[in-house]
Amino acid sequence: MNAVNHQIRLAARPVGVPTPSDWKLTTEAVPVPGPGEFIVAVAYLSVDPAMLTWINATSSLVEPIAIGAVMDTAAVGRVTSSDHPEFEVGDHVYGAFRVQEFARSDGDGVTKLDPLLAPLPTYLGALDITGLTAYFGVLDVGRIREGDTVVVSGAAGAVGSVAGQISKIKGCRAIGIAGGPEKCRWITEDLGFDAAIDYRSEDVGRALREHAPDGVDLFFDNVGGEILDTVLTQLARGARIVLSGAVSQYTPDQVRGPSNYLSLIGARASMIGFLTLDYAERYPQARAELAAWLREGRLISREDVLEGGVPAFPDALPKLFAGENIGKLLLAVP
Amino acid sequence: MNAVNHQIRLAARPVGVPTPSDWKLTTEAVPVPGPGEFIVAVAYLSVDPAMLTWINATSSLVEPIAIGAVMDTAAVGRVTSSDHPEFEVGDHVYGAFRVQEFARSDGDGVTKLDPLLAPLPTYLGALDITGLTAYFGVLDVGRIREGDTVVVSGAAGAVGSVAGQISKIKGCRAIGIAGGPEKCRWITEDLGFDAAIDYRSEDVGRALREHAPDGVDLFFDNVGGEILDTVLTQLARGARIVLSGAVSQYTPDQVRGPSNYLSLIGARASMIGFLTLDYAERYPQARAELAAWLREGRLISREDVLEGGVPAFPDALPKLFAGENIGKLLLAVP
Repeated sequence: MNAVNHQIRLAARPVGVPTPSDWKLTTEAVPVPGPGEFIVAVAYLSVDPAMLTWINATSSLVEPIAIGAVMDTAAVGRVTSSDHPEFEVGDHVYGAFRVQEFARSDGDGVTKLDPLLAPLPTYLGALDITGLTAYFGVLDVGRIREGDTVVVSGAAGAVGSVAGQISKIKGCRAIGIAGGPEKCRWITEDLGFDAAIDYRSEDVGRALREHAPDGVDLFFDNVGGEILDTVLTQLARGARIVLSGAVSQYTPDQVRGPSNYLSLIGARASMIGFLTLDYAERYPQARAELAAWLREGRLISREDVLEGGVPAFPDALPKLFAGENIGKLLLAVP
Repeated sequence: MNAVNHQIRLAARPVGVPTPSDWKLTTEAVPVPGPGEFIVAVAYLSVDPAMLTWINATSSLVEPIAIGAVMDTAAVGRVTSSDHPEFEVGDHVYGAFRVQEFARSDGDGVTKLDPLLAPLPTYLGALDITGLTAYFGVLDVGRIREGDTVVVSGAAGAVGSVAGQISKIKGCRAIGIAGGPEKCRWITEDLGFDAAIDYRSEDVGRALREHAPDGVDLFFDNVGGEILDTVLTQLARGARIVLSGAVSQYTPDQVRGPSNYLSLIGARASMIGFLTLDYAERYPQARAELAAWLREGRLISREDVLEGGVPAFPDALPKLFAGENIGKLLLAVP
């Protein structure tokens, strides 16, 4: 049995994307449960673009993670010892277990998982916050109607890939913007997007005019920057731009406002910000619907699972900003 | 009787704010009405920031005014001769009579005015498109609720001054941003705004934190640029930013996107574009309500009337972009 617990702690406050020297790998004894507590052996860790906003000092949304603290993240794992009445050894669980191999918990915020209903990684994929962000962002914030033309940036990412698929399920036309032929092939051939635009090799404006000649009804934006500016010139009347994120803008030196924002006037369009956690009361209903679509094969959740365990975390996070991964980025913990 | 008709025509397509050499003053005979037509002697001409978007080539909203054409504008005047069954000599009328002393009309788009109900200039002020823009922008697009904190930029301008007053009528707290002590004094002492921020002498961000400590519920933006970026950092949850215009951004070399637009996410806020003309069916109802507020003294319409007639138009328009005028800018035609 593994006698030690490896952890990744924040060692310095990075500006922009952190480098390995911003992290410290520490070793502790595997924790022992106190009264009413249990221990989880983490199996998969979530790696998310929003982590930059948790560690950079510039965010106003969240209290930044303290220097020396174990890095936050959502994870799934299995209970290995327990003094908690509701959690038994062998239970599969989901929680904010942080970037470490073993977590001690009193059960607060922890949910039990059914590994027969969906594979464990999917609980960090389409059934987790990224899938829920796509769900509420497209349906509630974006208010799509059948026949709408929906454009998704970061379309091969964890949120974007689900957003486009939900649009298709609801009878919309889905156009994805992604980087590189592999991602473009995946979203059209495997996920059923109507069209893909490779922003690395194509003129996005020209491609949009071709694929969305009547304009864009919903732009679900995960990227920001130049792509947002281009889509702003192609809005249909009454269009909604849902700000799901802005992966190109999380590093302060890159922040750039959309210079074409006045196009919102002529299009009678809205740019709308939202936070998924506002919909927490409806997570169970949304998860049930997402799970049903997964079972029916109408929704595909792809997890990009990296090996290497907790020590590989510092190298994993930058992949999100280099556009290297397809689907939800996870780290397997052996 | 005046035997000639002076007109201002576009002589060159300017980039940004036009200079006098971009215009040509021409002289024609006073027109004679054909069958079903009448002639209007123009009394007041409207001078508007949006004119830049009509003459610059960059606008996608409207077909630009052709070189050599008489400049468009709304105007009020009196019928001087008529072969039209519904318009008699002496009738006061409103219409798109263009920048000239006499206009020939078949009555299309022309409305009769009651000079006893409101002074003629007010029909180009609070009762015209600028007042209607404030009305629909604040009430329909901005969806204000009693108790909201409303911030208005360009608060001493034609649209902004009415927007702030409507907010007060509806039980909101109104904070105006304007340039210079005279404008700030006018909006607080005469119009009843709760506070004014002089962007020329004050730190707008600090002043906003003082006057709107719980954040801004509605930002009615006529200006754009740096002020928009500052207000974006002070939004209350669920805030609306209504894009009424962007007087700082009408010249292409100045266009600058709001780099703080991602603040919309944390605030769950929206940035909304609209065009007043979409509410044309409700103009009569809105005008009646605005006229009632004017009669009751709850709404003040201030017109900044320049002398000099049609030949003074080339010098009048730039005043809007130099922040020189208070209220609605008009040109009196003798």
